[in-house]
Amino acid sequence: MIKVGILGATGYAGIELVRILSQHTQVQIVSLVSQSFAGRKIYDIYPNLQGVVDLVCEELNIEEIAGKCDLVFTALPHGISKEVIPNLTRLGLKVIDLSGDFRYKDVSVYEKWYGMEHGNPELLKDAVYGLPELHRNEIKNAYLVGNPGCYTTCSILGLVPLLDKELIYLDNIIIDAKSGVSGAGRNVSLDYHFCECTENMKAYKIATHRHTSEIEQELSLVANTNVQVSFTPHLVPMKRGILSTMYANLKESLTTSQVLDIFKDYYKGEYFIRIYDEGHIPEVNHVTGSNFVDIGLVVDERLNRVVVVAAIDNLIKGAAGQAVQNMNIMFGLDEKKGLTAPGLYI
Amino acid sequence: MIKVGILGATGYAGIELVRILSQHTQVQIVSLVSQSFAGRKIYDIYPNLQGVVDLVCEELNIEEIAGKCDLVFTALPHGISKEVIPNLTRLGLKVIDLSGDFRYKDVSVYEKWYGMEHGNPELLKDAVYGLPELHRNEIKNAYLVGNPGCYTTCSILGLVPLLDKELIYLDNIIIDAKSGVSGAGRNVSLDYHFCECTENMKAYKIATHRHTSEIEQELSLVANTNVQVSFTPHLVPMKRGILSTMYANLKESLTTSQVLDIFKDYYKGEYFIRIYDEGHIPEVNHVTGSNFVDIGLVVDERLNRVVVVAAIDNLIKGAAGQAVQNMNIMFGLDEKKGLTAPGLYI
Amino acid sequence: MIKVGILGATGYAGIELVRILSQHTQVQIVSLVSQSFAGRKIYDIYPNLQGVVDLVCEELNIEEIAGKCDLVFTALPHGISKEVIPNLTRLGLKVIDLSGDFRYKDVSVYEKWYGMEHGNPELLKDAVYGLPELHRNEIKNAYLVGNPGCYTTCSILGLVPLLDKELIYLDNIIIDAKSGVSGAGRNVSLDYHFCECTENMKAYKIATHRHTSEIEQELSLVANTNVQVSFTPHLVPMKRGILSTMYANLKESLTTSQVLDIFKDYYKGEYFIRIYDEGHIPEVNHVTGSNFVDIGLVVDERLNRVVVVAAIDNLIKGAAGQAVQNMNIMFGLDEKKGLTAPGLYI
Amino acid sequence: MIKVGILGATGYAGIELVRILSQHTQVQIVSLVSQSFAGRKIYDIYPNLQGVVDLVCEELNIEEIAGKCDLVFTALPHGISKEVIPNLTRLGLKVIDLSGDFRYKDVSVYEKWYGMEHGNPELLKDAVYGLPELHRNEIKNAYLVGNPGCYTTCSILGLVPLLDKELIYLDNIIIDAKSGVSGAGRNVSLDYHFCECTENMKAYKIATHRHTSEIEQELSLVANTNVQVSFTPHLVPMKRGILSTMYANLKESLTTSQVLDIFKDYYKGEYFIRIYDEGHIPEVNHVTGSNFVDIGLVVDERLNRVVVVAAIDNLIKGAAGQAVQNMNIMFGLDEKKGLTAPGLYI
Repeated sequence: MIKVGILGATGYAGIELVRILSQHTQVQIVSLVSQSFAGRKIYDIYPNLQGVVDLVCEELNIEEIAGKCDLVFTALPHGISKEVIPNLTRLGLKVIDLSGDFRYKDVSVYEKWYGMEHGNPELLKDAVYGLPELHRNEIKNAYLVGNPGCYTTCSILGLVPLLDKELIYLDNIIIDAKSGVSGAGRNVSLDYHFCECTENMKAYKIATHRHTSEIEQELSLVANTNVQVSFTPHLVPMKRGILSTMYANLKESLTTSQVLDIFKDYYKGEYFIRIYDEGHIPEVNHVTGSNFVDIGLVVDERLNRVVVVAAIDNLIKGAAGQAVQNMNIMFGLDEKKGLTAPGLYI
Repeated sequence: MIKVGILGATGYAGIELVRILSQHTQVQIVSLVSQSFAGRKIYDIYPNLQGVVDLVCEELNIEEIAGKCDLVFTALPHGISKEVIPNLTRLGLKVIDLSGDFRYKDVSVYEKWYGMEHGNPELLKDAVYGLPELHRNEIKNAYLVGNPGCYTTCSILGLVPLLDKELIYLDNIIIDAKSGVSGAGRNVSLDYHFCECTENMKAYKIATHRHTSEIEQELSLVANTNVQVSFTPHLVPMKRGILSTMYANLKESLTTSQVLDIFKDYYKGEYFIRIYDEGHIPEVNHVTGSNFVDIGLVVDERLNRVVVVAAIDNLIKGAAGQAVQNMNIMFGLDEKKGLTAPGLYI
Repeated sequence: MIKVGILGATGYAGIELVRILSQHTQVQIVSLVSQSFAGRKIYDIYPNLQGVVDLVCEELNIEEIAGKCDLVFTALPHGISKEVIPNLTRLGLKVIDLSGDFRYKDVSVYEKWYGMEHGNPELLKDAVYGLPELHRNEIKNAYLVGNPGCYTTCSILGLVPLLDKELIYLDNIIIDAKSGVSGAGRNVSLDYHFCECTENMKAYKIATHRHTSEIEQELSLVANTNVQVSFTPHLVPMKRGILSTMYANLKESLTTSQVLDIFKDYYKGEYFIRIYDEGHIPEVNHVTGSNFVDIGLVVDERLNRVVVVAAIDNLIKGAAGQAVQNMNIMFGLDEKKGLTAPGLYI
Repeated sequence: MIKVGILGATGYAGIELVRILSQHTQVQIVSLVSQSFAGRKIYDIYPNLQGVVDLVCEELNIEEIAGKCDLVFTALPHGISKEVIPNLTRLGLKVIDLSGDFRYKDVSVYEKWYGMEHGNPELLKDAVYGLPELHRNEIKNAYLVGNPGCYTTCSILGLVPLLDKELIYLDNIIIDAKSGVSGAGRNVSLDYHFCECTENMKAYKIATHRHTSEIEQELSLVANTNVQVSFTPHLVPMKRGILSTMYANLKESLTTSQVLDIFKDYYKGEYFIRIYDEGHIPEVNHVTGSNFVDIGLVVDERLNRVVVVAAIDNLIKGAAGQAVQNMNIMFGLDEKKGLTAPGLYI
């Protein structure tokens, strides 16, 4: 039994970790930390857990956590994670961080896009970017994993085969991404009021969203050169799910079916990646409630442009599920353990 | 391994059975029958199942099914179920029927409310009403279970302790129930068009909905006298979930806390029934995605009236989950097997 | 031209007043007061108004408002309204108040249900309850109107003919009401977060909601005796709209059609009340965007109980539209002026 | 009084025409044609219209319509419109067609994208593309107007100033458009079942949607050369509204504010086009219920790429509202007549 603690357990990513881990037969949740709800039963805050998880939320006590956990998931806001994590790793704990604080190789990129000093550049060197389909081997031996963002997971995985196989020009990659509202977390803000979101849709942070830099880091690694992309996030009136529509110009004429074959080959053996057959395109409800990444595409032969569509559940493959997948890898378990539930569809 | 077939596998209740059973470690799905989609892979119809369930939908072939199944779930429209099931039971198959065809003790009640002859009144005698919390012992030995309706499960379980303990008058029981749209199944009809449902709400079949008769049958059994209720179903713009608000007049003065204690005592040991503490009332998202029935209540001391609120996921405890619970009981498995996932909340 | 000011212009009821009045050809909006947004253009806060209303939000300045307005709408929280309004009426302004502060005849009822001292019982005596269909003549000459609540408008109008004609017993009136989220206003609270509301439904304030007392006041007036009701409000995942399902026991046997005739007769000449023919029941999208109250009903002959369903747009007939209707009456205009737009349906 | 008939009055675009025209003080609706509902009161089909429009749906009778109408709106499926319209225009009627049948200058483009012969290429020559902001003068004198598509209105108006002022390269224009479900009309199909749409999102008809050709026709006209675009439509869980996010590469370095000034200048005097200030981006609920087109943009200086976001109500400026705007122009009325209502926002 792996003993785990969850810091920030009552946010949407945190509680999704609790939900998934409550069904993981090789994990025992031993500590739930929540500053806002310390002292209260977790199922008072999330009554769906009544009869399933019987823990009381605690204040953060590093020593205590270190004493009883093998691994800690930190589902804290960026900026806070980087203050807390060094204290955990110093005591020998493995950590999977769901914030943006440990996702970057180059500290200056972090500091530019997050607008703050990092303060722990040496830890960044050890931290591994937790996208198993790209970095599985490094994750195996990592003690600190920077779990990817939701938009980024979806977008990177949808583009990587095109870059790896050098099929596209690098100067016109456009990512138009649409997310459900839970991507913004459980923050109380007029922006996420039901009446402001339902029957509404908007683009936001055009050309300035932080996930741009994370996508560019990983695409550049694969392309082995500096890649820049247009990334536009949108808020859609649904709880969960991300749909990312991506555009790139092909260097040579290829058919839809040829590009799909390249994707299928590239992701061969990847359980959580499902490449669609020609004529089929992923939808959000194909993945909601699951850890799958669904990818489909069309080559627009008129323009020799490929349009890739990728879908994930932002709280699972885009956050908590991917974190559990990383944990499984770090502890030598079956990577799918606790993550086999198919999506709900309805 | 219990070998099961599902008839009507591509409706919403049917596919929910597939989804749940795909994660049940003591069940093997061996046959999916769908007239509309025979010959097509199930994951072509429900892409959420790609990589999880790899079966092809079949035409109905009774002999073949009997040859390979221990149990058949029939998720067919009422009227059809009663034609098909005798052919299955005759060949020794156990059957759990999700339609209304085998829920009644008195064939004339069925014939009145469903407006058709039943044709198999002798099978009705053997059939057991599959509400485990009321009929567990009969289910154990049944070969044919009439799985309860969604509204009925929620409403009966919310009222039974009041009747069993003779706390209420029987002449003013009012059930005001609200359901998500999946309760109507996957039927293509203008009534369930997105634009006709979203941002809309309506009552329907006031005083004439079939579930009235099913609720009255079970309440009468418990009360040991004829009970009649007002039952008003409503359609709410959500996919899943039922919330049932029930009103009854107390015979004697009781506090909220006293009535809650009676409920807690009555349902002691029932894993899937969660009675809320005073001051807490169930909401649909506490149960969505789970097999739980959540019940809370308030005694309005001004009027000496009790208001009970019960919530379920209509596709799980109201259909597929309850069917699996019945299967577990019929085959001597842990009743919770395959059904422990907590609700999603978000 | 009637010159009006709106206090609390940036809440949902306030902005709905602005929207409706912007199309009213005999009204000029001269002042928008909003403490939170003073100094900002109204269309910065509500961009739907760009090019339509070009006013800047102001701090509250009683003298200034009195100098330029004939009428003030106060869309302020209860408790605040009663502090502000005496200063307005003292200076000769007519006031229509959308809070609960001036809806009561008996100050002790207000003080009990609102949990605070009123402080201006003498103004209460002059204030008229602004339900035109019941109090048109008093409204004509009023200088202070307490505009009814949303739940109450819908529920009172659906029950009044039954009481006026003495068709029902008074001891078992049950009102099960369902509201869209805008009924809670634009308050930023976790309760109204999109992810907590969508695909969810709940009952709240069972047996304790303030509108109970308002409904009882008006029903008692009509019945000429003390009437008490069960009132249960529910939150439904839609922006606008209320559906109220009401139950009462008939004294004598009547058919659906007989009761409908009584309703049609009772509301003869009332433009904003639409009584449905037998077999038709109102839905929320029949009224959304309009000032109509739609009423349908079924007599359950098995139980000799009538089930009435009434629907309104909570922000229009349940707030801003009714306030404009009151204004039209107070100023001798056509009562329908500015309020003739039919609902949107889609 | 202009006397109008509406063919296809019970579809979503048709009924939106009825709703808008019912409030237009210079129009009298004299005929509603609906094959599916002939003989039934319009308010039986759309109860929102009870008390507002009291017409009975009729079978199509060309002679009768010609005898009593000045203008006919045809809200029929493409392919049907082109069969019916010649019979109307021959009798001297003015016609505004909401289908795709009369939007094209080049019949071969129509025939390629719509996959059918046109049969009336000579009428195409007379037909005017009904986008007032581009073709106002031709519309004035037209007897046949091809009312633009919803996606196209939004996308063309968002891009035209860039092309007219030759600010962008023409080879990388990408239009990623998102629509509410009403864009698909009132067709009964599993695709538009509430449970298949809510909490879901998808792209469809990638690289093959017919509106591509319509957008290209108009952009090519403005650019005075052949323009091709990527156009990807998406289905979003909302009733109304389109948000179009468009990408193009700037020829020279320009700031957001410089490009906005060019847009403001280009659309000077256009009442229905609202260009946002820097830092503000349109959202669907800014336009829902109104005839406005809202446009905002950001120049991504890193990439010298402009990202334009445009929003409309697909049923109003994208269909019925624009048709009324065209009617106003054709009959010499104030272009805004009947179309001044601001959006609902909530």
